[in-house]
Amino acid sequence: MVLLEKTIAAVQPLNEEYMQRMKQRLDSLLKPVGSLGILEKIAIQLAGIMETDNPEIRKKAVVLMGGDHGVLEEGFHGYPRQVTAIMMERFAKGGAGINVLARHVGADVFPVDIGVADPYNPEGIIVRKIRPGTANMTKGPAMSREEAVKAIETGIEIAGDLIDRGYNLLATGDMGIGNTTPSSAILAVFGNYSPAIVTGAGTGLDKEGLEKKRKAIARAIEVNRPDPSDPIDVLAKVGGLEIAGLTGVILAGAARRVPVLVDGFITSAAALVAARLCPLAVNYMIPSHLSEERAHILMLKAIGLKPMLHMEMRLGEGTGAALAMSLVEAATKIPREMVTFQDVGLA
Amino acid sequence: MVLLEKTIAAVQPLNEEYMQRMKQRLDSLLKPVGSLGILEKIAIQLAGIMETDNPEIRKKAVVLMGGDHGVLEEGFHGYPRQVTAIMMERFAKGGAGINVLARHVGADVFPVDIGVADPYNPEGIIVRKIRPGTANMTKGPAMSREEAVKAIETGIEIAGDLIDRGYNLLATGDMGIGNTTPSSAILAVFGNYSPAIVTGAGTGLDKEGLEKKRKAIARAIEVNRPDPSDPIDVLAKVGGLEIAGLTGVILAGAARRVPVLVDGFITSAAALVAARLCPLAVNYMIPSHLSEERAHILMLKAIGLKPMLHMEMRLGEGTGAALAMSLVEAATKIPREMVTFQDVGLA
Repeated sequence: MVLLEKTIAAVQPLNEEYMQRMKQRLDSLLKPVGSLGILEKIAIQLAGIMETDNPEIRKKAVVLMGGDHGVLEEGFHGYPRQVTAIMMERFAKGGAGINVLARHVGADVFPVDIGVADPYNPEGIIVRKIRPGTANMTKGPAMSREEAVKAIETGIEIAGDLIDRGYNLLATGDMGIGNTTPSSAILAVFGNYSPAIVTGAGTGLDKEGLEKKRKAIARAIEVNRPDPSDPIDVLAKVGGLEIAGLTGVILAGAARRVPVLVDGFITSAAALVAARLCPLAVNYMIPSHLSEERAHILMLKAIGLKPMLHMEMRLGEGTGAALAMSLVEAATKIPREMVTFQDVGLA
Repeated sequence: MVLLEKTIAAVQPLNEEYMQRMKQRLDSLLKPVGSLGILEKIAIQLAGIMETDNPEIRKKAVVLMGGDHGVLEEGFHGYPRQVTAIMMERFAKGGAGINVLARHVGADVFPVDIGVADPYNPEGIIVRKIRPGTANMTKGPAMSREEAVKAIETGIEIAGDLIDRGYNLLATGDMGIGNTTPSSAILAVFGNYSPAIVTGAGTGLDKEGLEKKRKAIARAIEVNRPDPSDPIDVLAKVGGLEIAGLTGVILAGAARRVPVLVDGFITSAAALVAARLCPLAVNYMIPSHLSEERAHILMLKAIGLKPMLHMEMRLGEGTGAALAMSLVEAATKIPREMVTFQDVGLA
């Protein structure tokens, strides 16, 4: 708990002076004021995060946390649990969606086993397993409060190591068969939504599956009574290990003044927990895409984020966040490489 | 007219066989079917366009057409006409928004003077001036029918040259102070919208300016009575030279089986004209961003396109299309670089 408390305490507001200066610089450039929209907003945000007139992305990392989910026992999920372990191996070897898209934008992928249940070859994986998957949240808490804190702190440590190694743009990625279920439950609790509103098709449930999922979420909330004013309680009772770990990644980014890209529905659940633990941390988040998972827009609104990419994607793994890395880098080049009105003799 | 007619006649449907094969390939990859959304749709579209199982982007070009607008006489525009010429010089020298974003994605920028009114240093510009700006469309046709056809054919020739030189992904870009006005008029005519619905703030009009713009568009339509069933008539009477040129670029791409990215409001007007001249050409268009110009979404709907990027941008120059080039390239890498379920021993 000490590391988590220290991390939250270290999160400071953005530097307004650098943001103001960046805005002035952007307004001097050869274009109608504000006409590059979100690219300009990101440039201003990065100036405020990094406390510099010239934000530069040096090294980019996708932190891809994998964990399993006891709620799979309820039997409505489309893929067997073993797929989590198989995918973790694949992330290390390359050839999964995130490997292709991360390479496309020049980012490194760091798969982290924070709670995978099945055996696999751990070569190339950062193994920091808290426990082999959560318990079935429809019957009791997914994990203990101590485990939730430990998972968050693991995320803080891993992100901290990457930042020490020079990574200054992080993307969140998730792997965990069944993990839209806890993500929906987290949104239901924080947003006080009925399970029907937050329940979506995940990787492709039919009507019957959807109904079972909705009931499982309702039961999990009924059985556990998570307290929305206590984010750790919510995370422990109806969350997941990878979600907790990613919450830590985001908090560490915020504490160390490094921007963190939020990916789809699951990483947004982690971002929502981070926002509730530490509202200032939202300033360090950059949204990426709007997932096909139907409650994603509600989740982003609950955090206060607006997605840039509308790609109809629903793969997870950090794939949307990886695509957005190219946009964040573009944003840093606008103030650095564009000429001003003055440069071309226009007042 | 011969070149235009031949070009339209050369546009063929997409190759369904290659699209089907690409879909099969995508469905075999290690991900839930369809979960990469628009990236998969683009991969399928490119397979159908390029007639290959392995679409590759070799060289990328932004064709940036510049022209001036007689309607500026009406006095409601935010920038003086001379800015078009100043910007053209800048596109050749580098340091404008499009230069920065095109370099970011590895694309070359080709500025084309198809109708700039003021003198400037033409070094580095493809000068193919049809006339020095259009006439004031509130008093008569913006240009003659012959000039409109010549402008389209100029775009066809320029795009054809680039395709001959190995460019196989084109982006459309525009420069022309006042050119949201003809673009709105084009949308009003084709969509049978009232001028109030299609008129937006452009680079930043106030309420009074907006009202003058709306009235100018209404008057232009009243005075000229463009015939929506005759796209050349619409283009000549209430269009622009750069819009006509970009219509040609899109048609040439379609005829030569090269995908063309549509940028914001003005290039979408060109795409709408192309779609009305040749409905099959829509298959060769790839949408990029949703502009802040408020009727852009109506324009895209009229064509049948859905934007991927929601960046709140309104600069033009091809900036949104340039950002989307990275997404198109990502789409080509998915089928080429991802492993299949079979590769990892999953049926």
